[in-house]
Amino acid sequence: MEHQLQVYNSLTRRKEIFEPIHPPQVGMYVCGPTVYGEPHLGHARPAITFDLVFRYLKHLSYKVRYVRNITDVGHLENDADEGEDKIAKKARLEQLEPMEVAQYYINSYHLNMDRLNVLRPSIEPRASGHIIEQIAMIRKIIEGGMAYEKNGSVYFDVVKFNEKHAYGRLSGRSIEDTFSNTRALDGQDEKNNSVDFALWKKAAPEHIMRWPSEYSDGFPGWHLECSVMSAKYLGEYFDIHGGGMDLLFPHHECEIAQSVAANHHDPVKYWLHNNMITINGQKMGKSLGNFITLNEFFTGSHQALTQAYSPMTIRFFILQAHYRSTLDFSNEALQSAEKGLKRLMAAGETLELLKASEKSSLEIEPVIQAGYEAMNDDFNSPVLIANLFEFVRMINSVKEGKESISEADLNRLKTVFSVFMYDILGLTSELSASRNDLVDGLMDSIIRIRKEVRIKKDFSTSDMIRDELKKIGISIKDTKEGAVWSFD
Amino acid sequence: MEHQLQVYNSLTRRKEIFEPIHPPQVGMYVCGPTVYGEPHLGHARPAITFDLVFRYLKHLSYKVRYVRNITDVGHLENDADEGEDKIAKKARLEQLEPMEVAQYYINSYHLNMDRLNVLRPSIEPRASGHIIEQIAMIRKIIEGGMAYEKNGSVYFDVVKFNEKHAYGRLSGRSIEDTFSNTRALDGQDEKNNSVDFALWKKAAPEHIMRWPSEYSDGFPGWHLECSVMSAKYLGEYFDIHGGGMDLLFPHHECEIAQSVAANHHDPVKYWLHNNMITINGQKMGKSLGNFITLNEFFTGSHQALTQAYSPMTIRFFILQAHYRSTLDFSNEALQSAEKGLKRLMAAGETLELLKASEKSSLEIEPVIQAGYEAMNDDFNSPVLIANLFEFVRMINSVKEGKESISEADLNRLKTVFSVFMYDILGLTSELSASRNDLVDGLMDSIIRIRKEVRIKKDFSTSDMIRDELKKIGISIKDTKEGAVWSFD
Repeated sequence: MEHQLQVYNSLTRRKEIFEPIHPPQVGMYVCGPTVYGEPHLGHARPAITFDLVFRYLKHLSYKVRYVRNITDVGHLENDADEGEDKIAKKARLEQLEPMEVAQYYINSYHLNMDRLNVLRPSIEPRASGHIIEQIAMIRKIIEGGMAYEKNGSVYFDVVKFNEKHAYGRLSGRSIEDTFSNTRALDGQDEKNNSVDFALWKKAAPEHIMRWPSEYSDGFPGWHLECSVMSAKYLGEYFDIHGGGMDLLFPHHECEIAQSVAANHHDPVKYWLHNNMITINGQKMGKSLGNFITLNEFFTGSHQALTQAYSPMTIRFFILQAHYRSTLDFSNEALQSAEKGLKRLMAAGETLELLKASEKSSLEIEPVIQAGYEAMNDDFNSPVLIANLFEFVRMINSVKEGKESISEADLNRLKTVFSVFMYDILGLTSELSASRNDLVDGLMDSIIRIRKEVRIKKDFSTSDMIRDELKKIGISIKDTKEGAVWSFD
Repeated sequence: MEHQLQVYNSLTRRKEIFEPIHPPQVGMYVCGPTVYGEPHLGHARPAITFDLVFRYLKHLSYKVRYVRNITDVGHLENDADEGEDKIAKKARLEQLEPMEVAQYYINSYHLNMDRLNVLRPSIEPRASGHIIEQIAMIRKIIEGGMAYEKNGSVYFDVVKFNEKHAYGRLSGRSIEDTFSNTRALDGQDEKNNSVDFALWKKAAPEHIMRWPSEYSDGFPGWHLECSVMSAKYLGEYFDIHGGGMDLLFPHHECEIAQSVAANHHDPVKYWLHNNMITINGQKMGKSLGNFITLNEFFTGSHQALTQAYSPMTIRFFILQAHYRSTLDFSNEALQSAEKGLKRLMAAGETLELLKASEKSSLEIEPVIQAGYEAMNDDFNSPVLIANLFEFVRMINSVKEGKESISEADLNRLKTVFSVFMYDILGLTSELSASRNDLVDGLMDSIIRIRKEVRIKKDFSTSDMIRDELKKIGISIKDTKEGAVWSFD
């Protein structure tokens, strides 16, 4: 495991050498979806970002336990402490049991992530499956004096926490900033201070998702599940916590506060955050008419799209930007990614056909090193991809006879190209998906060719066509409407 | 919803007219997998059986909520009340966190069920995610006097339950039978009687999967989860409970006892059980060398298999027997199923090409009715399939000009054939899976045909071949090693 991997730690705001707590083990926790709607671009970017991290750490021979949660309870509208649970609301609108809604969108999320070739995490815990552990953590926080109960709900006391520990270390916000950005308390509010947040909410009578606790029949606050499930499966101090930058405040800030209040030390060594996406320069939102689901991208069925974009085009496009940069989606940019990916894939096929020479006229080793340096520089996939395009130029030069490559270099290039493309970037060939239509197209062509040779009275070729098809299990029959084919 | 569906109820041991409790809603609970190993034939049969039930009830326009659990804790070796947890044992052997083992096999189960075209249930609850609800039910049973605590564990008092309620109604075993079939208590045993079963087990110090309760830090008994999760998502009295016949006793018997003790009434209206499978007449078992996973069937990679069998062949083979019959797997029987399925699928393709005549010379309506009568007769899929073969004979007769079919009949036949084959039996065409290889085979053929016409100096046909391929995005290039093709 000799490497020079550096990762940008949001907590220290600088790149640090990656040194796991218990090598070769690495524990990584990433905030997963709240399952109340179809997966969209906002889901694809963190999933692909941390899939890249997962794949690269495994490539470096780390034994990675990757935990990505499923939020199936407790996430209220507008990420607030009041209002309706997102899943329960969807269930109410669709007249379904909340868990039926959650299950439907969990399945849809998995299907879409599989299509994007995102590896499944090692453990996918659900918030609703860890209520006991969440209540136990609330108890610890109350015992430590950092939370208070009010009318059956429990709130984290941010002001008191801030007296002992610096609240806002991750986001760089002072408690004064936070105060000025939270709405003033009205008479109805149970919180001592507007900056406090809910650990447990007493359920209103109509609330279906509820569990008993010593405080009330209720449900856990949204921030709590991640503190609890990461500690349960990775320990109270683990290596990497990832998520989108939109979760940095308040979600991850609250996670730190909860863990410090309960366990008296930081929960995470490296905090990693992917940047946001925009669509034609605008934030994606239902009200803006630019809210596009992944399935709409894959099928082209959204008015903002001029064509369908395959899952690998979306994946490649996301990897063409560094994860900490913003990323703007547009038809032009996606079409350009589509072309680039095609060139890469074609070069991969050409590479298999190259012939070795006595000597190499080109140097592949510096390009390989540059690829690894890019990945070691905080997972800089766009630079890795640029180096892959350097390989493409080399491959085409050898093919055209302008350059030569030795047997040893050719074998090395084949291995490295495959490692970079398929293992680390997680790209796959999409030819197979379209091959269904291809068979129909090829058979149409063959039938026309057969007709042509029969017109020319070349019956031996016509017979040869019949025999060739027979070998692969296809029969051609002549009917009044022309020749038709079928599987034997 | 006019229909004459009758289902065989294991509880009453006779066929009964199916009348759901709250039509058009139907609640169905089926025991799902204990996730500690690769899915095998024993998983395929109940999944496909209750997929057939799920599909047919939906076809009859019922609104079905189908709950299938995942057992990720509490299932001890040999289905007993002592010994190691199956998942924890696997985790210990593989040096993994138990939930990592569970997640791995959950993913594998889903993958295999998807390949068998088994629809996902509406809700897939996990035992470990419902500990609070299980503790609440234990409390209710203790309060009702039907369970007792001993050293931090809680046992269901079968003897006391039997004084008030008949224990053994489902399996038809008397408590005396049960006594004579359970091993005598030794001095170590905490149970009052050998027939009692665990509701909660105190965890040994090395036991990882544990939760706090008023009895001890421990884990729930295996039988409890199904009573709890079915009640949570379907109510305390619901329509259908399914599972393999091996679960009838003690698992389902214990479920009834638990629910009656807690809620004072039966939990389930219709109990449905699929019969067992054998392999070449023997029970499947690891010690017998005939333990074959589904993936081994799909790839043919087991010494007992003479070839690979596709997922649809396995599905069709299972549906060719009534779910309450035993089913013996052998290479011969599977090969015969493979041929039968091919004939059905070919007839489906032929059907699309049939031409209508003025009048029909054959009667399709009686065959359609016979198909529905079969399904209404306790989901008799083999008889439905026999009627589909009657359609095959008709389709081939029309194709050969021996019979004629009117436009109206042809349309009706197309609709019904599709409903029976794809909607109800859940069969799918597997051509697409093999089409990948087909493209390669077809291109090899085309290249040989092109070579042939060039040898004959028929360059116009050779050019035509090039142009035809160009149209579908394929280029042919001549190299020293012969012609090679690639996608543009």
